[in-house]
Amino acid sequence: MTHDYVAIDTLKFLLYNVHKVEDLLQKERFSEYDKTSIDIFIDSVKTFSDTALHPFIKEMDEKPSVFKDGNIYVHPQFENIIKGAGEMGLVGAIYDFDDGGMQLPSTIFHAAYFIMEAANNHVPGYFGLTAGSANLILSFGNQKLKDTYVPNMLDLTWGGTMCLTEPQAGSSLSDVTTLATPTDKDYYQIKGQKIFISAGDHQFSSNFVHLVLARIKGAPAGTKGVSLFVVPKNRPSENGEFTYNDAAIAGEFEKMGQKGYCTTHIVFGDNNDCRGWLVGEANKGLSYMFQMMNEARIATGRMGAGIASAAYFSSLKYANERPQGRKLNKSGKKNTDEEQTLIINHPDIKRMLFTQKAIVEGSMSLIFQTATYVDKEMTSTNAEEKEKYNLLLELLTPIAKTYPAEQGIQSISNAVQILGGYGFCFDFMPQQYYRDIRIIALYEGTTGIQSLDLLGRKITMKKGKALELLAIEIQETITAASAFVDLKPYANTLLENLGLVQKVIGSLMPHAIEGNYERFLADATVFMDFFGTIVIGWQWLKTAVIARQTIKDGNGNQPIAFYDSKIHTMKFFYTYEMPRTKGLAKTLMNDKELTIKVSKELF
Amino acid sequence: MTHDYVAIDTLKFLLYNVHKVEDLLQKERFSEYDKTSIDIFIDSVKTFSDTALHPFIKEMDEKPSVFKDGNIYVHPQFENIIKGAGEMGLVGAIYDFDDGGMQLPSTIFHAAYFIMEAANNHVPGYFGLTAGSANLILSFGNQKLKDTYVPNMLDLTWGGTMCLTEPQAGSSLSDVTTLATPTDKDYYQIKGQKIFISAGDHQFSSNFVHLVLARIKGAPAGTKGVSLFVVPKNRPSENGEFTYNDAAIAGEFEKMGQKGYCTTHIVFGDNNDCRGWLVGEANKGLSYMFQMMNEARIATGRMGAGIASAAYFSSLKYANERPQGRKLNKSGKKNTDEEQTLIINHPDIKRMLFTQKAIVEGSMSLIFQTATYVDKEMTSTNAEEKEKYNLLLELLTPIAKTYPAEQGIQSISNAVQILGGYGFCFDFMPQQYYRDIRIIALYEGTTGIQSLDLLGRKITMKKGKALELLAIEIQETITAASAFVDLKPYANTLLENLGLVQKVIGSLMPHAIEGNYERFLADATVFMDFFGTIVIGWQWLKTAVIARQTIKDGNGNQPIAFYDSKIHTMKFFYTYEMPRTKGLAKTLMNDKELTIKVSKELF
Repeated sequence: MTHDYVAIDTLKFLLYNVHKVEDLLQKERFSEYDKTSIDIFIDSVKTFSDTALHPFIKEMDEKPSVFKDGNIYVHPQFENIIKGAGEMGLVGAIYDFDDGGMQLPSTIFHAAYFIMEAANNHVPGYFGLTAGSANLILSFGNQKLKDTYVPNMLDLTWGGTMCLTEPQAGSSLSDVTTLATPTDKDYYQIKGQKIFISAGDHQFSSNFVHLVLARIKGAPAGTKGVSLFVVPKNRPSENGEFTYNDAAIAGEFEKMGQKGYCTTHIVFGDNNDCRGWLVGEANKGLSYMFQMMNEARIATGRMGAGIASAAYFSSLKYANERPQGRKLNKSGKKNTDEEQTLIINHPDIKRMLFTQKAIVEGSMSLIFQTATYVDKEMTSTNAEEKEKYNLLLELLTPIAKTYPAEQGIQSISNAVQILGGYGFCFDFMPQQYYRDIRIIALYEGTTGIQSLDLLGRKITMKKGKALELLAIEIQETITAASAFVDLKPYANTLLENLGLVQKVIGSLMPHAIEGNYERFLADATVFMDFFGTIVIGWQWLKTAVIARQTIKDGNGNQPIAFYDSKIHTMKFFYTYEMPRTKGLAKTLMNDKELTIKVSKELF
Repeated sequence: MTHDYVAIDTLKFLLYNVHKVEDLLQKERFSEYDKTSIDIFIDSVKTFSDTALHPFIKEMDEKPSVFKDGNIYVHPQFENIIKGAGEMGLVGAIYDFDDGGMQLPSTIFHAAYFIMEAANNHVPGYFGLTAGSANLILSFGNQKLKDTYVPNMLDLTWGGTMCLTEPQAGSSLSDVTTLATPTDKDYYQIKGQKIFISAGDHQFSSNFVHLVLARIKGAPAGTKGVSLFVVPKNRPSENGEFTYNDAAIAGEFEKMGQKGYCTTHIVFGDNNDCRGWLVGEANKGLSYMFQMMNEARIATGRMGAGIASAAYFSSLKYANERPQGRKLNKSGKKNTDEEQTLIINHPDIKRMLFTQKAIVEGSMSLIFQTATYVDKEMTSTNAEEKEKYNLLLELLTPIAKTYPAEQGIQSISNAVQILGGYGFCFDFMPQQYYRDIRIIALYEGTTGIQSLDLLGRKITMKKGKALELLAIEIQETITAASAFVDLKPYANTLLENLGLVQKVIGSLMPHAIEGNYERFLADATVFMDFFGTIVIGWQWLKTAVIARQTIKDGNGNQPIAFYDSKIHTMKFFYTYEMPRTKGLAKTLMNDKELTIKVSKELF
C-alpha cells in the first residue's frame, strides 16, 4: 500500500491491535465511541489533511509567515484551515462534553494530530496550542475566565498561546521576570517580554489569548514565585466591545524551517496598559503549566515523528521510481547491457528505508503508548492503578518527546541521502523536512532538559518505582514474545538490555546518593539515547508479537506482507539499532569526569 | 586562544608536529620552502580569509547565486575574491614551477583550503575546481591544450569545472551518454547534458573550461567507453577571438545550503555547434578522472571539516557568553539567589563542545594524514615505498571524504543545540552551517558510493595489502602511546579495535570469496562508520602522543593547556565515540540479510 505522508494502516494497527484502544472505549468517559465512530473521525482528519493541509506544505516554506506593522501574516490557506479545524472540533477533541469538547481519548487526539502534522507540520501547532491554553483555563481558571475565553477558542475564532520563555532566561523558568502588579480590580498589570512564542498571531483569528508565566510583585524568587495569567491581545469589556490590551507582537524569529508557522516576540505592557487575569492561585503557575507539559511534550515528539513519516514516504516514492546502477554479478562486476535497476533494489537504499521505517513507526508506537497512559490515568478509579499509570506516563514522556526529535533528524537525513544530489535541492521535499524537524529537539525543553528530567527526576522518583513498573510492562512483552520461536532471540536481547539498564543505573546512583548531582547528571543526554533506544526496542517487540499473533490467528484485515513487514522491521531495529546500547552503556559507566571541572582553556 | 572559524594553532600543530611537514620539505620537489615560508603562505591565506571571505558568508546565504538569461550571477564580492585568489596563486598551488605553479606540498594546499572553507564554504570550490580541471589538462592534455587553457585558468581569468553527472545516470558513470562525434578537424562535436555542475559559471570570469566525460561514437558500453574532453564555454579561434561554443547554462539547482556557490545544469551542443578536444587517449577518460578523484575526495571531506570547524567556534563563542541556569547543589537543587552561570559550565554543553572538537580536529588530522601520503607518493623515488604510500592513500581517501561529511553533520547539530532556540534562527550562524554541510555527504560520490569503494575495492585490493600497511602505521602509534602511562589504556583500546577490524573482515570476506558481492557489500556504509571511527581514533592517539611528548620535552610554542586539550579531547573521543565500534561490529557480523532479497511490500 502506498502512502503520501502517513501509513494510515499502520496507525490503525498500532491503535487498535497493539495499543488496544477499543479497551479504552469501554471506559465510561469514552462510552459514546466505538471503533466505527473512531474510524470515521480518523478518516475525516485524513481527508482534511489530504485536501486542506498537505497540498500547501511546500508553499508555506516558500512563502513564510511575515511580520508587518505589528501583525503576523500567514499563508492565505490558513483561512480555510482554521475554519475547517474549528468546525471539526479539533481544538476541544479531548475536552469534556460539558465544556463543548468531543471527550475523545487522548490517544485518538494524538493520532489525529499525527496525521495532520505528517501532512503539514507548519499548521497544527495553531490548533494544538489553542487546545493546550484553553485546557489550562478549563482546568485551573475560574468560571468567568472559562466563559469569557474558551468558547471562542474552541472554534479557533480566537487563538491561544503559551508564553514561557524570556530573552534572559531561556529554558531556566526560575528566572522569569515578567511582572504582574496587583490592582484594586480583578486584574493585574502585566509588564515583560516573551520570546519564541509559537502561533503568537495571525490575520485569521480576531483575538489571541496568551497564557503567560509572570511573577507577582513581591513573590518569592525561583519557580515558587511564578504565577499563571490570561493575557488577551484584545480584552473584552463589559459592553461586549474589545480594547487593545497592550500586548504587542514586536517581531518574528526567522527560522531555517517550519517557516509557515510563526515564532513571535511579544512585549506586554510597554504602554502600561496590559491587563492579566490570574489563573488559579498565585505562585502555582509552574505547577499548572507542568500539568499540561506532559501532553505538550508528547505533542512535540509526535510532530517530529510526523515530519519523519512524511520524509520517509517521500524518499520511498523516489526509491521506487528512480533507476540507477545495476546489481553486481558473481565476479563483482556490473553488466552494463542490463537495464539500470530501481534504486530500491540496492541493499544500502533498503537499509536507509528500513532505518526510517523503524524510527518512524517505533516513534509512533511510543507516542500512542504514552498517550494510553494519559487515558488510563484519567479514567482509572483505583488510586493505586492511577498512580501506576501516572508514573509510567511521567517516565515515558521525556522519551516520547526526545526519541522522535533526535532520531527523527537521523531518519530524515537518510531520506535526503536516498535522493542523492536531488535530496539537497528545493525541487524535492526531504530537504524541507530536514530543516523543519531540527526545531523539535529544541521546542518544549531541549534534549538536554528532557534528559535531566528523565535521569534526574523520573528515574529516581518514588525510589525508582516508575522504572520498576515499566520493567514489568516490558517483561510482559518479553514473555509474550518468548512464546514464538522466531521472536524469542529478540526477547532475550531485550531482557539483556533491561539488565544493562539496571547495571548503568547502579553505576550512576552512588553519585546522586553522595550529593554529587553534577556528576550524576553529566551524561544524562547519553542516558536518554541509551534508554530511549531500549524503550523503542520494547515497542517494536510488542508490535511484532501482535503481528505474529495476527498471522497465526489468520484474523488480520491487512495482507500478510503487512504483518511480515512489522516483524521484519523489528528484526532490523534489533540488528541495526539495538547494538548501539552496549557502547552507550560503556560511555555511561566511564569514571573519567571529562566534562566536569574542565577549564575553559581546554576548548 | 579564541578563534572565529578555524584554530590556526591547532592546524599548525597538526602540520608541523603531528604530520611532520618539515620532513616533506626536505624532498627536492619542495626544497624552495622552509617552515618560515610555509608559515607566511598560511598566514597570508588566513588574512585573505579574514578579510575577503569570512565577512561575506551570511550575505551569500541571504543573496544566493542566481540564474538569469543564460548566465549565473554570484555575490559581487566574488570580484575581489577571484582577483585576490588569482594573485595569490591558489589555483596552481601544487603545480610544478614550470607550469606556473607554486610547487607546494599537497598537504599545505589542503591546509590553505581548509582555512578558506572554514571562513566561507561558498567560495573556495571555484578555485578548487579550476585547480582540479587545469591539473587534468596539465597531466593528460597535449601541449596545445595546455598552452591554450591553463595560463588563463591559473589566475582565474577563466574558471574550470568537472562535468560528470547526467540526469539519467546519477552516480552511475557507466551510463554516461553525452556523445562525442569525431570530425575531420582536431575536435569532436559534443552533445549531451550534465547536471550538478558546481562552479559552472559566474559573471567575473570571462570564460569557463569544462572537463567533460563523454562517449565517442561507437565506443564500448560502460566505463570502458568514456573519454575526457575539454569543452570551453567560448572557444578561442586562430585569430585570438572567441566564439560561443554552444555550451549553455540551462539553469541552476536551488539548494537548501551553500547557496552562494552555484550548481548548474549545462546543455552541450543543443545547436550542434559544441566542440570538444580530447584529453589524452580515447576511452581513458574515467581513469584520468579517477587520478584526480583522490584529491577531489580529500577536498570534499576537507570542506566538511572546515564547515564543522566554523560551527564549532560559533557555538563555543555563544557558550562563553550566554548565562543560563545554575549548578545543582548537594541536595540536587538550584540556588536562585546565585547569578546565572555561563552555559559553558554545564557538563552537557561541554559534552557537545568536546564532541565537536573531537570531530573537527580529528577530521582535520585525517585530511592532513591523507594528504601527506599524496606528497610522499609523489616524491618517493623507491618503487616499493611509492606503492606503499599509494595504497595508504587509496585506503584512507574514502574515509577522509566520508567521516568529516557524516560526522560533520552530527558535529554541527551539536552547535545548533548549544544555542537552544536561537540555533534554529537566521540571526545566528549554526543553522546556516547545518544546511551548508548537508551536501558534503552527497558531493563527489555519496557516502554509499564511498563505502562500496572502501569495502569493495580498497580493503580487498592487492589481497588486503593496504590494510596491512595501515595496521603497521597504527601499530607504530600504539607502540609510541604505550610508552606513556596515561596514554597506554587508550593504546590498548585502539589495539583491541584493530583486532575487531580483522574479526569483522574475517566474517565478511567469505561472502566475497563465494561471489556473493551483494551480501558482502550490503552493509558497506555501516563498515565505513565502524572503520572510520577507528581511523579517527588512531589520529587522536597520534595527536595525543605528540602533545604528551611536547609537554615532557618542554619545547612547545603553545601554552601547556593547548597540549592538555589535545590529550583531553583524545580521552573524550575514546570515551564517547570509540565505544560505538562494538555495536557497529555486531551489526556487521549479523547473518540475517535483512536488506537483501526483501520484497518491496515490506516497506
